[in-house]
Amino acid sequence: MTTPTLLVLDAEPLPRLGRLTGRVRVEHADESSLAERLPHADVLLVWDFTSHAVREAWPGDGPRPRWVHTASAGVDHLMCPELAACDTVVTNARGVFDQPIAEYVAALVLAMAKDLPRTLELQREQTWRHRESQKVAGSRACVVGSGPIGRAIATTLEALGITTALVGRTPRTGVHGPDDLDRLISRADWVIAAAPLTERTHGMFDARRFGVMQPSARFINVGRGQLVVEDALAEALARRWIAGAALDVFETEPLPPGSPLWRAPGLIVSPHMSGDTAGWRDELAAQFVELYERWEAGRPLVNVVDKQRGYVPGH
Amino acid sequence: MTTPTLLVLDAEPLPRLGRLTGRVRVEHADESSLAERLPHADVLLVWDFTSHAVREAWPGDGPRPRWVHTASAGVDHLMCPELAACDTVVTNARGVFDQPIAEYVAALVLAMAKDLPRTLELQREQTWRHRESQKVAGSRACVVGSGPIGRAIATTLEALGITTALVGRTPRTGVHGPDDLDRLISRADWVIAAAPLTERTHGMFDARRFGVMQPSARFINVGRGQLVVEDALAEALARRWIAGAALDVFETEPLPPGSPLWRAPGLIVSPHMSGDTAGWRDELAAQFVELYERWEAGRPLVNVVDKQRGYVPGH
Repeated sequence: MTTPTLLVLDAEPLPRLGRLTGRVRVEHADESSLAERLPHADVLLVWDFTSHAVREAWPGDGPRPRWVHTASAGVDHLMCPELAACDTVVTNARGVFDQPIAEYVAALVLAMAKDLPRTLELQREQTWRHRESQKVAGSRACVVGSGPIGRAIATTLEALGITTALVGRTPRTGVHGPDDLDRLISRADWVIAAAPLTERTHGMFDARRFGVMQPSARFINVGRGQLVVEDALAEALARRWIAGAALDVFETEPLPPGSPLWRAPGLIVSPHMSGDTAGWRDELAAQFVELYERWEAGRPLVNVVDKQRGYVPGH
Repeated sequence: MTTPTLLVLDAEPLPRLGRLTGRVRVEHADESSLAERLPHADVLLVWDFTSHAVREAWPGDGPRPRWVHTASAGVDHLMCPELAACDTVVTNARGVFDQPIAEYVAALVLAMAKDLPRTLELQREQTWRHRESQKVAGSRACVVGSGPIGRAIATTLEALGITTALVGRTPRTGVHGPDDLDRLISRADWVIAAAPLTERTHGMFDARRFGVMQPSARFINVGRGQLVVEDALAEALARRWIAGAALDVFETEPLPPGSPLWRAPGLIVSPHMSGDTAGWRDELAAQFVELYERWEAGRPLVNVVDKQRGYVPGH
């Protein structure tokens, strides 16, 4: 049996593939060399999960890897009709980001409830100004996205005493369907976007939806930037349709200097870091090594993406 | 029976005593008139819980109120040997602040773990800079103070997956005694001060104790400023003996402009607001009204402070 070729779409720092050494021929590609190398690879590891190069290179000529793994929860950056239609299996990093992102959302909810950004501003001005803040226990959240990340967010918010509804593509026990969305966000103190980016979720948070929310509501996006019509959010904040927001993901990343979002009133901007806790890269590499060993042994892969839906279907 | 006189040491906004109207003669005092009015009062409501006027006026001549209630959890601002020695009952606002303060501590823990202050700084500079943050689940906290506030903090941190030890004056089930303190803080990622200010707790967080903590530890004080030797904390931060801190309470409040604490590295300064969620003043007033009705009916008061210990002893 020939040694399989693993092609890595690189990003620094490179993955530590530890015990795969010698069992696989590792080749490296960057965005410019990907198209040329793709036909020679058995497996593609999309380590640079910020790149859209796979989506662009995949439709080209020649054989294609039988398996593509992305070191991310979302697969929107690599999916294209040709990849969706072929036999190649796509897997993702399901599981690695759940708890970190849930904690990050809790951090944002509590920071907004306790008016922490203003406290830090006043500290900079050396000004002592007592304010009343909000209790989060007893408030209501609506989490859009019922995968493991959305469910981890719901569990964490519930642990803080926040009554939390989950919304997914398909209604089932404990998960509301899209028909309930407007009713739920109209009553929520916290609306959290944690859905995969698909045709159905693209632009779902638009002017109409911000208009449905309460003036006291806060909106948080830890999913993908394109879930949100950014101009509509900026306007909703400026007109005080909602009380505040926090975005960790953006239509264009990095968010360009000069974007009006940096200074939108009541908006917290963070650089797509919600899932990235110390050691995350090693966890992603270890997860790939485990999957690789399944693949090598001919055992079924886990975290297999439904390429039509654009995410790993779950319970 | 003559109508009892309730003397209120005032602060704006005044308490809404609702259904007590007509059943009690309400008189008002400020810091300068307190000494003169004290002999004519049956009950003293310390509504201005930032004032030390009671401690100063109490030792004077004449009769004294039979009952003193303070709209605060701590009683350090009013206790003096003469009040401790006499028959007057002292009650506090036990219960009102537990959940808000627990949430506030969770907000600070998560904000520090997720590097939120730096995120807000970078946002101001319109700079996109990804950083790794910390997972709080699996970390360790030590909460000093085993009253209802300390216990609520422990419950909330445990709900976030943080292994939390409580330290109180007397070891009992679920509560460590002072002998365990150094060992516990030497292993804690989060050290939370939520103890009453007493002779035993005054200055307990000093240079030696900050030296015992891990370089990665963060310290949070939501108890009383005097629990902490502030210069020692500033130095511990400057020398990186610990990784960060948040103070909501200070030796001198308001913290004066120009205090080096405003700019101490890695320190979050907030204006004694951790317990004050929307509606808190009405909750404090309602709690006093309930206590007053017990007193009026000759039923035993609750939230009775052990005047030797300086807090309400509990389970």
